[in-house]
Amino acid sequence: MPHRLDELLDELSAQALLVVARTSRDPYLARFTGAVKLGPAFVVAPRGAGVRLGYLNPMDRDGAAATGLGLLTPEALDVVRWARETESASERLAHVLSRAFHLCEMAPGRIALAGWWSAGEALEACARLGREGWSFAGGERLVLLLRRTKSAGELAEMRRVAAGTMAAFHRVAELLAAAEAIAGELWLGGERLRVARLTREIARALAEHQLEQPEGGICAPGREGTVPHTGGTPERVLRPHESLVVDLYPCGRLFVDASRTFCVGTPPEALARAHAHVREALELARRGAAPGRRGWSLQEAVCEHLGGAGYPTPIADHTTTRGYVHGLGHGVGLSVHEIPYFKKEHTGPEAYLEEGDVFTLEPGLYEPDAGWAVRLEDTYWLGPEGPESLLPMSYEMDPRAWGAMIGGA
Amino acid sequence: MPHRLDELLDELSAQALLVVARTSRDPYLARFTGAVKLGPAFVVAPRGAGVRLGYLNPMDRDGAAATGLGLLTPEALDVVRWARETESASERLAHVLSRAFHLCEMAPGRIALAGWWSAGEALEACARLGREGWSFAGGERLVLLLRRTKSAGELAEMRRVAAGTMAAFHRVAELLAAAEAIAGELWLGGERLRVARLTREIARALAEHQLEQPEGGICAPGREGTVPHTGGTPERVLRPHESLVVDLYPCGRLFVDASRTFCVGTPPEALARAHAHVREALELARRGAAPGRRGWSLQEAVCEHLGGAGYPTPIADHTTTRGYVHGLGHGVGLSVHEIPYFKKEHTGPEAYLEEGDVFTLEPGLYEPDAGWAVRLEDTYWLGPEGPESLLPMSYEMDPRAWGAMIGGA
Repeated sequence: MPHRLDELLDELSAQALLVVARTSRDPYLARFTGAVKLGPAFVVAPRGAGVRLGYLNPMDRDGAAATGLGLLTPEALDVVRWARETESASERLAHVLSRAFHLCEMAPGRIALAGWWSAGEALEACARLGREGWSFAGGERLVLLLRRTKSAGELAEMRRVAAGTMAAFHRVAELLAAAEAIAGELWLGGERLRVARLTREIARALAEHQLEQPEGGICAPGREGTVPHTGGTPERVLRPHESLVVDLYPCGRLFVDASRTFCVGTPPEALARAHAHVREALELARRGAAPGRRGWSLQEAVCEHLGGAGYPTPIADHTTTRGYVHGLGHGVGLSVHEIPYFKKEHTGPEAYLEEGDVFTLEPGLYEPDAGWAVRLEDTYWLGPEGPESLLPMSYEMDPRAWGAMIGGA
Repeated sequence: MPHRLDELLDELSAQALLVVARTSRDPYLARFTGAVKLGPAFVVAPRGAGVRLGYLNPMDRDGAAATGLGLLTPEALDVVRWARETESASERLAHVLSRAFHLCEMAPGRIALAGWWSAGEALEACARLGREGWSFAGGERLVLLLRRTKSAGELAEMRRVAAGTMAAFHRVAELLAAAEAIAGELWLGGERLRVARLTREIARALAEHQLEQPEGGICAPGREGTVPHTGGTPERVLRPHESLVVDLYPCGRLFVDASRTFCVGTPPEALARAHAHVREALELARRGAAPGRRGWSLQEAVCEHLGGAGYPTPIADHTTTRGYVHGLGHGVGLSVHEIPYFKKEHTGPEAYLEEGDVFTLEPGLYEPDAGWAVRLEDTYWLGPEGPESLLPMSYEMDPRAWGAMIGGA
């Protein structure tokens, strides 16, 4: 990584990378700190030198030491003094960073900056550092490029997250398979089966695998599934013969992202047909996903396929809310959405697949007037043998066709 | 709120507040958008005018409409055009914000800025807007002051979160009460009882209440509890006669924060004594917590009490790692840590309690050499009748003394 980092710093004419973060769960910082838990912290990586970790709370000393990075301790950074002598959080931040640069033996110059921080505070702190001669360039893309290739530890964690996610899908299938249709509604255990029951069971299954859903999740029946970002109304009673889009993107230390579409009872013909087309589109995209392939060209291929089957597509009409209405996929890792990108506006290395990438493919078809939606999505690791789904599970709409999870849950 | 907002904008000589956020879970944005779920979004609140919500993803249209705020839609903001015509995320952001200011009929001037955003990207976007005549001041404190007083809906949500949190503590007490001591280790159901079992059961209990732990949680036995930020080693087997500090700060839409210290079997005398002193310190702080009282003066009172009982305190020695080693409390709400503040360096209204505040009180005592720790913490709402704990549950160390949860779980 250091060699690659230096190249990327050169592109920005920057002498160092600085990542500031509220916690070690910040996806920009986590690439450097790994599984360790820390409060407010930052890394400074001067060109040609090692990565050093600064942390602000003395109680984080054990975690900081566990990263194996060179440390800039609260004592060395004079954190207590700045807390006493300064008036604002941005002033404290500026003092701490200035001290860190000094400890790293850097002379004022240009710094690539990344990490999630309060925007106003970051702006004020950098303005203050600017008066000492420091200048800043956006360093987000640099870190995103560094972190697109997953480490062995990161990939292992994604496989663990995928296993828990599959357990949650299997739980949904089990509940749906056990449901009974009575007078146009689904019932389970003497109660109407509502979205809330499924989302509670999903959360419980994920919790058993130490997974959470910080970005939410989707469990959207019928018409609710036709606006792809709608999470599903908790009180909504599920019905037979309607679509149910379940899209989960939980995380442990990293995320995975997967979608399946269920239907209890015989699906309407148009829904069954759409499901088959989406299944074909996913397979088409998967077969095409190879190193060097542009993400956007896979979207073009999927649009050609679905357009050929008679559905509107976003390439034919970018305002369509019927047919295929969104992008094909996105990189996944420390964030749900990261490099590689699949959109037309993206160029450069981030727009082309590379070995070691992890990304989703997620074609879908939506029919708001008829009130059904289909989306199928897997997270793939692009290994030496081609794309491998991290979530090998059924694509069946019929929950009774799912059976038990291979390898158990 | 608008009147108060205008006053705070005047203090900053700013004509408007701008909050930029990656999602509606951003604690600065959430004060304005409430329970609604949105992707990348911002609010602009010009002085003397209403709050307007801008959102970047057309699929968020339903959520955006549900906020009841005036809307700046992706179409009005020309989001598709900027995606096509610009080269970087910061350039896109600058175009979108510039368009938003124009739509709000603002002339270039000074803006108070808050919200969590990629630091480098925010810096570049603001530099670009600076060339159009816009300037920026840190607006974080302004939003923190606005949001310290909880709305009825926020307080109701905190009570819901508190109920789920109490259920998790009761689950811990149940498991510990059922454990057997065999040869210096705790056993449950034919297995050694490890930290991982407790954290799994805690996560499951929280999931059943739709709660998560984005900031983590602490379940720290014996010596592990003596570094207050250490989460607890999953494989560690629990032992009789040792302390177990459980500190949970889960969230739904808002957070609560609570700690209890357990001990299975007779506690060592020093631990029992410390527990009694911490209980007294908590009661002392609770009784003193009234509108107009400075948070720091409560810390002074607690240090005097614990110091008088012979323990080192951070006022007597700020480097101590024995005795009482941290601050007394902090505001809680959309973030785990917010206004009111309890530290010496804080001045201004944020350093004094107000009616409507929600905050923790959390005295503790730590003895690394002997390997025990005690912390007791509740989250209080400072209502017209004085501080009310949102988590009325046992303080007993003996899990068998906990009994069933009042009102059920």
